[in-house]
Amino acid sequence: MTLDLTKYIASIQDYPEPGVTFRDISPLMGDGDAYRQATNEIIEYAKSKQVEMIVGPEARGFIVGCPVAYELGVGFAPARKKGKLPRETVKATYELEYGDESALYLHKDAIKPGQRVLVTDDLLATGGTIKATIELVEKLGGIVVGTAFFIELKDLHGREKIKDYDMLCLMEY
Amino acid sequence: MTLDLTKYIASIQDYPEPGVTFRDISPLMGDGDAYRQATNEIIEYAKSKQVEMIVGPEARGFIVGCPVAYELGVGFAPARKKGKLPRETVKATYELEYGDESALYLHKDAIKPGQRVLVTDDLLATGGTIKATIELVEKLGGIVVGTAFFIELKDLHGREKIKDYDMLCLMEY
Repeated sequence: MTLDLTKYIASIQDYPEPGVTFRDISPLMGDGDAYRQATNEIIEYAKSKQVEMIVGPEARGFIVGCPVAYELGVGFAPARKKGKLPRETVKATYELEYGDESALYLHKDAIKPGQRVLVTDDLLATGGTIKATIELVEKLGGIVVGTAFFIELKDLHGREKIKDYDMLCLMEY
Repeated sequence: MTLDLTKYIASIQDYPEPGVTFRDISPLMGDGDAYRQATNEIIEYAKSKQVEMIVGPEARGFIVGCPVAYELGVGFAPARKKGKLPRETVKATYELEYGDESALYLHKDAIKPGQRVLVTDDLLATGGTIKATIELVEKLGGIVVGTAFFIELKDLHGREKIKDYDMLCLMEY
C-alpha cells in the first residue's frame, strides 16, 4: 500500500514568524511506514544516479540522507555549522531563509575527487543551505549528481538557485 | 569480512580544549562498509529488544539512529535543542561535558505511552545528553529498552549515570 505522505506533514501557521507556514516532517519520520516509504523513493533515485557518497546539512539533512547511505552501502558526510567538525574543513556561506547569514563546513577528506554525490535535505526553501552544501562538495572535487528532498516550498523559488542540478522532491507546497 | 571499526575513528588531541582527545566518527560514517557494519550491529541489538521507536539527540544521534529506524521499519524522533521543534514539547536539562548547562526537547506526540524505545548517540561521554534524552522519553510514557553508541569514553563514567538501562557500545576508549 502506498501512503499519502502529505498526511504525515504537520503545518504550523505563523511559525517561526507571522505569515510563515512551517512544514514539519516529524510526523513522517515518526511513523515507521511513512519514513520507510519516503526513504525508499530517495534510495531508488540515488541508485539511478549511481551515487557513491551522500552529503546532508545539519541536522534534518542527516535524517533524510543517513538511511539512504546505509541501504546503498555508501558513506555519509555531514555538512555542519561552525565549530562542529574537529579536523580541517572547507567553508561556504549562505543567506538564511529569515534574514541573517550563516556558514556550513565539510571535512576536507569527506569527499574524494570525482566521487558521485547525492545531496539531501528535508526541505527545499530558498535553496541557500543546499547551494552552500553543493559548493562544499564541488570545492573538494565531488560531482553532485542529484539532490533529494522530502518537501519543496515552491513559492520560495529554491529550485531556480540549483537549476543546474537534478532534483527529486517527494511533496510540494 | 569484519572490519576493525576503531581504524575509522579519528583521534584529535587537545580538541575542543587542551588535555581532551576528541574521538571523531566521521571517517566511520564516511566509509560505506564501516558505517553499514556499525549500523548492522545496532540493528541486531534493537531487534533483540523488540524496539518500536528510536530517539536520538541532535545531531550525531540522528546519524546513528536513522538507518536503524529505516531498517526496522519503525519511527525516529529527534531530541533537539531550544527553538528547533515547532510544536508542543517536553523539556529536560543537562550539564555539558565542558561546563555549561543545556536543554533538550521532544515533541509531545513523539512517543506513545508504553512504546519500546531505543536511544542512540554516537558517543557516551559524561552521559548528560543521553540521560536527558531518556528523561524526555519517560516523561511521555515511553519505555527505554536500550541505549546504543558507537563509542564509550570510559574515563568519563557516563555508564554510571545510565546504569539502570541496557547498553550497547561498539568501541571503547
